Amino acid sequence: MAKEREISIKDVRVDDGFWNGRITNAVEKVVPYQWRVLNDREPGAVPSHAVQNFRIAAGLAEGEFGGFRFQDSDLAKWIEAASYSLLYKDSPEVREALEEIVGLIEKAQQPDGYLDTYFILAKPEERWKDIAHGHELYCAGHMLEAAVAYYQVAGSDRLLKVMEKTVALIRQTFGEDKGQISSYPGHEEIELALMKAYRATGKDEYKELAEYFIENRGSKPGFLEEPHFQDAQKNRWFGASYHQAHAKIRDQKTAEGHAVRAMYFFTGAADVALETGDPTLKAALEELWKNVTQRRMYVTGGVGSQGEGECFTIDYDLPNDTCYTETCAAIGLAMWALRMLRLEPKAEYADIMERALYNNVLSGIAQDGEHYFYVNPLQLKPDVARFRRDHQDVEPNRVKWFGCACCPPNITRTLCGLGSYIYTRRGDALYQHLYIGNEAQFDTAQGKAELRCTSSMPWEGKAQIAYSGPSGIELYLRIPEYAVDFQIEKDGQPVKFEACQGYARLCPQDGGTYTVTFAMPARYLQANPRVTEDCGKACVQRGPLVYCAEQADNGELLNAFTADLSQPLETSPSELFGGIVTVKASGTRPDLAQWESLYQPAGTGRVPAELRLQPYFLWNNRGEGEMLVWFNAR
Amino acid sequence: MAKEREISIKDVRVDDGFWNGRITNAVEKVVPYQWRVLNDREPGAVPSHAVQNFRIAAGLAEGEFGGFRFQDSDLAKWIEAASYSLLYKDSPEVREALEEIVGLIEKAQQPDGYLDTYFILAKPEERWKDIAHGHELYCAGHMLEAAVAYYQVAGSDRLLKVMEKTVALIRQTFGEDKGQISSYPGHEEIELALMKAYRATGKDEYKELAEYFIENRGSKPGFLEEPHFQDAQKNRWFGASYHQAHAKIRDQKTAEGHAVRAMYFFTGAADVALETGDPTLKAALEELWKNVTQRRMYVTGGVGSQGEGECFTIDYDLPNDTCYTETCAAIGLAMWALRMLRLEPKAEYADIMERALYNNVLSGIAQDGEHYFYVNPLQLKPDVARFRRDHQDVEPNRVKWFGCACCPPNITRTLCGLGSYIYTRRGDALYQHLYIGNEAQFDTAQGKAELRCTSSMPWEGKAQIAYSGPSGIELYLRIPEYAVDFQIEKDGQPVKFEACQGYARLCPQDGGTYTVTFAMPARYLQANPRVTEDCGKACVQRGPLVYCAEQADNGELLNAFTADLSQPLETSPSELFGGIVTVKASGTRPDLAQWESLYQPAGTGRVPAELRLQPYFLWNNRGEGEMLVWFNAR
Repeated sequence: MAKEREISIKDVRVDDGFWNGRITNAVEKVVPYQWRVLNDREPGAVPSHAVQNFRIAAGLAEGEFGGFRFQDSDLAKWIEAASYSLLYKDSPEVREALEEIVGLIEKAQQPDGYLDTYFILAKPEERWKDIAHGHELYCAGHMLEAAVAYYQVAGSDRLLKVMEKTVALIRQTFGEDKGQISSYPGHEEIELALMKAYRATGKDEYKELAEYFIENRGSKPGFLEEPHFQDAQKNRWFGASYHQAHAKIRDQKTAEGHAVRAMYFFTGAADVALETGDPTLKAALEELWKNVTQRRMYVTGGVGSQGEGECFTIDYDLPNDTCYTETCAAIGLAMWALRMLRLEPKAEYADIMERALYNNVLSGIAQDGEHYFYVNPLQLKPDVARFRRDHQDVEPNRVKWFGCACCPPNITRTLCGLGSYIYTRRGDALYQHLYIGNEAQFDTAQGKAELRCTSSMPWEGKAQIAYSGPSGIELYLRIPEYAVDFQIEKDGQPVKFEACQGYARLCPQDGGTYTVTFAMPARYLQANPRVTEDCGKACVQRGPLVYCAEQADNGELLNAFTADLSQPLETSPSELFGGIVTVKASGTRPDLAQWESLYQPAGTGRVPAELRLQPYFLWNNRGEGEMLVWFNAR
Repeated sequence: MAKEREISIKDVRVDDGFWNGRITNAVEKVVPYQWRVLNDREPGAVPSHAVQNFRIAAGLAEGEFGGFRFQDSDLAKWIEAASYSLLYKDSPEVREALEEIVGLIEKAQQPDGYLDTYFILAKPEERWKDIAHGHELYCAGHMLEAAVAYYQVAGSDRLLKVMEKTVALIRQTFGEDKGQISSYPGHEEIELALMKAYRATGKDEYKELAEYFIENRGSKPGFLEEPHFQDAQKNRWFGASYHQAHAKIRDQKTAEGHAVRAMYFFTGAADVALETGDPTLKAALEELWKNVTQRRMYVTGGVGSQGEGECFTIDYDLPNDTCYTETCAAIGLAMWALRMLRLEPKAEYADIMERALYNNVLSGIAQDGEHYFYVNPLQLKPDVARFRRDHQDVEPNRVKWFGCACCPPNITRTLCGLGSYIYTRRGDALYQHLYIGNEAQFDTAQGKAELRCTSSMPWEGKAQIAYSGPSGIELYLRIPEYAVDFQIEKDGQPVKFEACQGYARLCPQDGGTYTVTFAMPARYLQANPRVTEDCGKACVQRGPLVYCAEQADNGELLNAFTADLSQPLETSPSELFGGIVTVKASGTRPDLAQWESLYQPAGTGRVPAELRLQPYFLWNNRGEGEMLVWFNAR
């Protein structure tokens, strides 16, 4: 079934006013930068050890394993990103680096197919012994994604062959037969990677293993009786639900535990549901989707309310200052949304995918491409973040690298692979979810369909989509939930269209250019009254962009501002960051001159005030200071 | 100097409509209850081991030390409380229990005067080796306070004699001479106890040792090079400032570290300042007082914004849900306020003392007297408190006892010793700080002065004070900061008075009855805009009582209510809890019927709503539920 819904990474090339700079930065600067970091050649960055580990495992260097046990995955994500980067710039240096690292991986792989430098170098006797926390299947998953990317973009199957052997070993090791381990990964990831490999190669063994892991998850004992797990779960944040192993997927009604794990799990499960067509699995995912996006998601598309356990907490518990909202988790949410769109093209999935990408994902990387957030709070006071224990995971500023560096290469592969988020298809029905400028071509049953999109998003609700190709193609253009007066013209003439689950259905015949226009006024949003932390507050969104206030524009004490919701928001272009749209909110502030004591009878004067707002993802690019998304409002 | 300012615990006996029930409860129920707990005879309470430890140390039982290393102090606080209780009920059982425990203590004391069952039983070789955390001086301090109470009220110097030997040993052990330890207590307490003993006995050695500890604190190395301290301070919450040892007292400009330690330290320092008359020490305390009460204190009189390190954080950092606000810290603040009043009678000290006593202290104990809060938050959502890591110290309900049970006996001694908080004196000038009904008599230079006060506080601003005694006495009655139309009549005639630092100065001649009346309308308070967590919010206070909303009266989602500050607060008597005054706030709530999704454009309807409020200290006496002090307001 999935074949007719598959879009290759090579089918879509982003060419967009907003994204080009970011992708170019990623391709030309971040990929080489991260390569230096992974080779421990970048001064000031935490040593990675990732390449050196492979060099040692390959017998080409001496030394001990360095870094976290899942250090291989940082490199794998970089391989994936670097492969995608070739789409935009076929750099000999990057190709050479890829050849070099693939060569190391080939040499590091054990004769039986095993490939994990931590266990090869540091704990050979512990192989497959700590499924809960060992991250062997997680690392294999990322390396498999890397292999597929390298295969699809660079055209080399060297790494894929390596991973074929590894997957064969995993299939031999895990299963329900005698002598096999009946379990599932402690950190999900390989499931979705296996499904990528299945779609790239058509080989059933990938799909079967993915389905086994998804369907077996939550069964007992799995890894739940492993001594490592038993020991770890003495800490309440590391129980079965941390791993989404507290129930079988169809019995999971709420998203629990480690947010990245959960997102990767649901992504892989949706991949499997698309292949198997099992309506009960699809229904389970729909219920989980609703729980996440209607009960446990920040307005920025962030998920994970708590640092301890990097986890979901309870419904409507969304603290703005102590949240975790890991960059990787938002990437995971976007990945899951894309799979839900493949399962069923409903614009609400695309709305969330876009929300995550333009806000919590993009905020993970600085404008310079070399500094990263792991945690993306919606409120920051630097002195509080530095002092308080419950802010210990919150960095007041992006940093050059992390000891646990999952996020930086994850952003890079997302930026370089952005093209894969724009479309899905159902045979000859093409769905455009994101108004990101691009060139795309799809092989359909009727022949090659070509699309060329130019877009003014996210600053203006305007895009042109030029189609050429067979005449029987259906084109569905998303009507964003924030769009006002959504209109389509073709060659200057208004087009009437049918709206299907949030998409405008078009029949472009053999060609023509559509112009999509819609207004997207800046507007105040409020949160469900069950969200304690947002009661009495509002935030501003314009198009897909959530806005925030920064100290750089507004001075300190951002929380003291109260917006007057009856006053219009004022939108204006700004030269900041090479051109953005800023928003001004009107309201009042307390007259600080009347405040010396700690508590006073109500009635102290307030003065008119404005709050200048900028897109959230750009915060902390102009020095350290307070930042606020949800401000008081009346 | 202090002599003419001293008031003995026997000079004042509380007899008051509001407090009698609580004191009777403490005397008749809580003192026996805690005796059972301390003897491990109370089912359902965490075992205390406190009496058993002494029994073992006395050679009358076998076994091992149980509980925390500072377990002796629980018993000491109980001895102090039980001694005070004899003022209200001369119970043979309590006297017998006191005799029994004092006998055990005598037997447990080592020949050289050493007295600490933890080190005697569990770590004899570690005596005086871990000054930072050993709590030997802390326990000695509490036992000395107990000895003074037992001596003053029960008239027996048996325990005082024991403690004289212990103090002699401490004086021999600590000091600047060769072979002595130059240090200061890891947990302050003994300083204020020594000053109590000095005032009770007139013996200079107590005062000298207190002064030494106060003045030496913060000098290096003190305990700062002890291996135990070095090890502990790897955790950032357990550095020098945790112990207020980061600087000498005159260089401390802000209250830092463990809040109870800080309060006890400042209390002892104020005691010393009163004796030495050193203006620089007084000035340092005034600056610290200002920092605490104008930057770092909750409206309930709670201090300590964070559970980790049980500590002060930074100026204006007052989270309402994750605060620590330990009952003992509020008791400590009241104790410190009393000493500041002795140093200089300014009504602002009494305002804070009253705020702490009527709110954060009283909330520490249930109406039944047998359940206690250690942490006193200003906002509680039970499901959040149960789940979230940053709420791990917050109990949704009072509990029967604690493994670390400093708070319960501390409340009991405070209730039974409440009389000592009502007055201070400067020779023949008597200051009444609290309108708590009482009978008092003071020996003055001119003869015996007798006061009889009846009061309608905290429900009504009315008190009568009958004076008889010498004609040269000055009587100063506090004008509370919340009092409106403060008036005094004598024998039915208005009295003109001079206001001195917040007190009405009266010259009662040889007798007469004053009637004090003032209005104390319920009013909204707001917090300084620098308090992030209270921005856009208000709370209600009436007289000394801070009010709160509970789910029992208002349903859930208390945070969703927004008060309309332009609407009057409605005050009415209620039969709840045997008669209290409740307050109703008017405002609006979101129309929940319009909310299913997580985020919506602003403008969703609100409906008129009321919030019924009750005194904060009574919260959680009607079952578990949400509670809120600071609610949204406009």
